[in-house]
Amino acid sequence: MNFSHKVQAMELSPIRKFVPYADAARAAGKKVYGLNIGQPDIKTPEAFFQAVRGFDEDVLAYANSQGVAELLDALAGYYKRLGLDFERKDLLITNGGSEAINMLMTAILNEGDEVIMAEPFYTNYKTFVGQAGGKVVAIPTTAEDGYQYAVKEKIEKVISDRTRAICIINPGNPTGKVLTRDEMKLIVDIALAHDLFIIADEVYREFVYDGKEMTTFGSFKEAAQNIVIVDSVSKRFSACGARVGSIASKNEELMLHLLKLAQARLCCPTIDQIGAAALYRLDPSYFNDIKKEYEHRRNVSVEALNEIEGIKYGVPEGAFYITCQLPVDDAEKFLMFLLTEFDVDGRTCMFAPAGGFFSTPGVGKADIRIAYVLNAEDMRAGINIIKEGIKAYNSRK
Amino acid sequence: MNFSHKVQAMELSPIRKFVPYADAARAAGKKVYGLNIGQPDIKTPEAFFQAVRGFDEDVLAYANSQGVAELLDALAGYYKRLGLDFERKDLLITNGGSEAINMLMTAILNEGDEVIMAEPFYTNYKTFVGQAGGKVVAIPTTAEDGYQYAVKEKIEKVISDRTRAICIINPGNPTGKVLTRDEMKLIVDIALAHDLFIIADEVYREFVYDGKEMTTFGSFKEAAQNIVIVDSVSKRFSACGARVGSIASKNEELMLHLLKLAQARLCCPTIDQIGAAALYRLDPSYFNDIKKEYEHRRNVSVEALNEIEGIKYGVPEGAFYITCQLPVDDAEKFLMFLLTEFDVDGRTCMFAPAGGFFSTPGVGKADIRIAYVLNAEDMRAGINIIKEGIKAYNSRK
Repeated sequence: MNFSHKVQAMELSPIRKFVPYADAARAAGKKVYGLNIGQPDIKTPEAFFQAVRGFDEDVLAYANSQGVAELLDALAGYYKRLGLDFERKDLLITNGGSEAINMLMTAILNEGDEVIMAEPFYTNYKTFVGQAGGKVVAIPTTAEDGYQYAVKEKIEKVISDRTRAICIINPGNPTGKVLTRDEMKLIVDIALAHDLFIIADEVYREFVYDGKEMTTFGSFKEAAQNIVIVDSVSKRFSACGARVGSIASKNEELMLHLLKLAQARLCCPTIDQIGAAALYRLDPSYFNDIKKEYEHRRNVSVEALNEIEGIKYGVPEGAFYITCQLPVDDAEKFLMFLLTEFDVDGRTCMFAPAGGFFSTPGVGKADIRIAYVLNAEDMRAGINIIKEGIKAYNSRK
Repeated sequence: MNFSHKVQAMELSPIRKFVPYADAARAAGKKVYGLNIGQPDIKTPEAFFQAVRGFDEDVLAYANSQGVAELLDALAGYYKRLGLDFERKDLLITNGGSEAINMLMTAILNEGDEVIMAEPFYTNYKTFVGQAGGKVVAIPTTAEDGYQYAVKEKIEKVISDRTRAICIINPGNPTGKVLTRDEMKLIVDIALAHDLFIIADEVYREFVYDGKEMTTFGSFKEAAQNIVIVDSVSKRFSACGARVGSIASKNEELMLHLLKLAQARLCCPTIDQIGAAALYRLDPSYFNDIKKEYEHRRNVSVEALNEIEGIKYGVPEGAFYITCQLPVDDAEKFLMFLLTEFDVDGRTCMFAPAGGFFSTPGVGKADIRIAYVLNAEDMRAGINIIKEGIKAYNSRK
């Protein structure tokens, strides 16, 4: 049987493809610290579960394709508190931020069209761009240059007549880079000058540290036709399993095209949307403690990473990921070693090999992404295993 | 801003695009019988809600990309009771049957590849085929020929070197056509001879009337590499809002490609999967009353349709749809008339104009699809409004 070129070019997620080996290690009695995936251990707000348990219809019916009205209104209210005036008609509820990206790429890309992203990039974007027939064009960044991509020359260098959009995850996944308002303005001006969409994935919006200000591309009214905001309850409210994402844009034509895609898949889950509405109605003070906790975990993780000789990484300013270059030949082989051959007192560690986060040839083979989603003690323990593992791995060869 | 050719060629769902007019009619105080959408009024089994309310984790975490183990096992058990030996590794949980179709098209279609479907076809398939760069090639059928497409000459006539799959909804949406085992065998032999996938959407499997036997393509072991079964809890358990579908196939390469797509979108909603597991564990006797009820509604609907002079339709043998050709110039205009200008004692009716269910030029303009998902009395009342509406519509011109 024949398969499409597109699907053959795709890869298993580097974040998830080693899960079977971690499961096997756990089955063999090892404790495995899961630093591979952005799955926080923060408790999901009780408001979600209360709303879900309170669902009392006899028939679990289809929701509106655009989204449950209650959720659209709660989301509009959340944006209002951020100073953004997205109304119901500007919003679409999606199956997680993932479906939002998938739909957006389908709506804007023809075969061979290009999407610009800072490298290292969140690898699943590449799958969605590829699914739509397009390709990711990277702006290479490194730990040494502070993962800086908001530089006029760097961006304009990769713009071609096939460029359709600049995709930005801010705060960044997988580097934790946070843009200043001036940097955002620079990107906005470039998008306007070249008639490009800015697809701003701001799912980590609240997680910005060191007293830096939280910003959003939605506040650049001069580029309202270009700007598309992607959001999700997954990280924001530690509700990854709800799969409730959203798209917000003032571009009416875009929203109409997206609605066609949304109607074809009928709707998002009804009950999860009702739960998500309760989350978006939470008082913003909810984030104060969460942010403090993540900042603490970031600090502890950075402290622990500094113990690893030969490591290179940039200190993240937001979100909850750190991309590091390890002093090993191959991060995937090293991970397999940790999962199948190594332990410290019966404990080992899993991370995401970050080779797939790069498109520049030859780059990223020794890079990994860790997510500081576990409590400080576990982060310290997990990173210590990486440190000890590197010594054992490099000495056995 | 530019949009993709693909998305520009797509249309709003004919099943959903008139919803705003129905909402306006309701807001103006009219009762609107909703025969447009396959949204049953049958109570969702309490087992679903019990399982959902029983979820007691602190963190609503991502599920496995392939699906929650409990659901995979329940689904395997359901298939086992049908005599099919799909194991965990042969199964993938999807966001409704819709995502299953979307993923399958992405996995098998290159630009310009073709998918064969009986016409009239479920229109959302066309969107997913188009999204993957392919096109639907129709086998035209009519009420007069009993919507018969399982005919060697008819199928072979439309096979080209670009054909990749035959998509079959059995029992059929939108015609209610049910294949005999001999007809299925004929299709299986053609698929084997031409190396084609059979994508068998069997979400209405249990709803077969007049004592006809329930069948499944899964039972043709000789074509296990070609056959892909799509299922969903939506209609089967009246749980449309759960959005839990699935793909089952013994083709390991296909399942691997699908897993890549599944990992990119991370997972399906955790809680709904737990609810769906409870549904697939229900005793098969659950379907006895449901089937009897739908058969009764079918009979009442057919009786009521027979009162409409000049109507053409085939009596459905399964599922819960009837495609009818009305004696009007344009089904969309007629529907707008019903929703905006007409009522019988403050009541009116909505159906799905079926033009979008046809790709043969000039065909289907007067066709509609009605879903007999409402109780017998409402079906009678709704169809009576169509009857009276036709008289008023045709006499006013």
